Amino acid sequence: MTISLSEILDSLPLRSPTGPAWVTAVMADLDHFLADHASCERKAHAAALMIVSRFPEHPDLQEKMIGLAREELEHFEQVFLILRRRKITLGPDAVDQYVKNLLQHVRHPRDQHLLDRLLVAAMVEARSCERFCHFAAALPDGELKTFYIAFAQSESSHYPLFINTAKSLFPPAEVDRRLGEWLDLESAIMLALPYAATVH
Amino acid sequence: MTISLSEILDSLPLRSPTGPAWVTAVMADLDHFLADHASCERKAHAAALMIVSRFPEHPDLQEKMIGLAREELEHFEQVFLILRRRKITLGPDAVDQYVKNLLQHVRHPRDQHLLDRLLVAAMVEARSCERFCHFAAALPDGELKTFYIAFAQSESSHYPLFINTAKSLFPPAEVDRRLGEWLDLESAIMLALPYAATVH
Repeated sequence: MTISLSEILDSLPLRSPTGPAWVTAVMADLDHFLADHASCERKAHAAALMIVSRFPEHPDLQEKMIGLAREELEHFEQVFLILRRRKITLGPDAVDQYVKNLLQHVRHPRDQHLLDRLLVAAMVEARSCERFCHFAAALPDGELKTFYIAFAQSESSHYPLFINTAKSLFPPAEVDRRLGEWLDLESAIMLALPYAATVH
Repeated sequence: MTISLSEILDSLPLRSPTGPAWVTAVMADLDHFLADHASCERKAHAAALMIVSRFPEHPDLQEKMIGLAREELEHFEQVFLILRRRKITLGPDAVDQYVKNLLQHVRHPRDQHLLDRLLVAAMVEARSCERFCHFAAALPDGELKTFYIAFAQSESSHYPLFINTAKSLFPPAEVDRRLGEWLDLESAIMLALPYAATVH
């Protein structure tokens, strides 16, 4: 059974919703948004592979992250093909200020670092998924809307993947406690940034 | 129709064959070889994505390299699963002296840089494929042999992919001329390095 966009939105834990002005900003420069989305997929794939490199002592984690990296790279390819059809050039990745601001709160000791990295990834996945839902809902009927609905559905499994992975490696109560802190941080960081024709 | 290992070897342009002492070195430390192979797949995927980032003015090239990066990442995942079954730990990538020595001969002007990068990739693919053929032939019958035969067959398409891509972007005569230089360089670099339980 397929999950609807409103069911996906209800499943997300975010503490501040994205306002309707974000969709307006995206629709005003759709080409830029699509290129930024491709870039986000490439960066998500690289972040998953960074975890694979840095935590060889956790082979279950490595296996999950390799599978996720493969999926994100497949998404990157799908969005790249949309860019090609629309004659949009895909350049190097730009800095994502939202992700950069989140990463400033990652703790350094090895175990805390891993937990925080997983929770930052969970935050980014949840916010991205929320915005894909809003974007898909706002699109007129057509190929792009169909693509983004399927895309939001596929992405909706990533927030729980990161939370469940964290709980397989750390005491679940500690994960929930730190998750609460991250949800507050994420909300403040998101609200402080202006809306633009970008995913974040 | 499936291509045989000896047909693959005949198709490769390498100017110096790998000697039988290489297979002996690999068989003496099979675990290390398998981990190095996984690492090579990850690096090949990253190299293809580097081309995607650096040459946005060539969307056909970007599309081919994204497809290749996806395939290399799938291979990385397949080899990682072999490592898991054998309880071999996969750490961060080590420096590949063979590739490092090749890269020292890459020219810097933008067009020459791209041509040389494609030809270096072609060299690495050809040599890797040659060695997978020798490794597969030396393995006793079983799951690993079956895997490496299929793997050598799949990898055998990568050398021509890079040569054909180069010829789609540069005058074919110039590609052939520079390819001749690279084949000499590759031969000298390969012969100067000791055999070890690594792909290169």
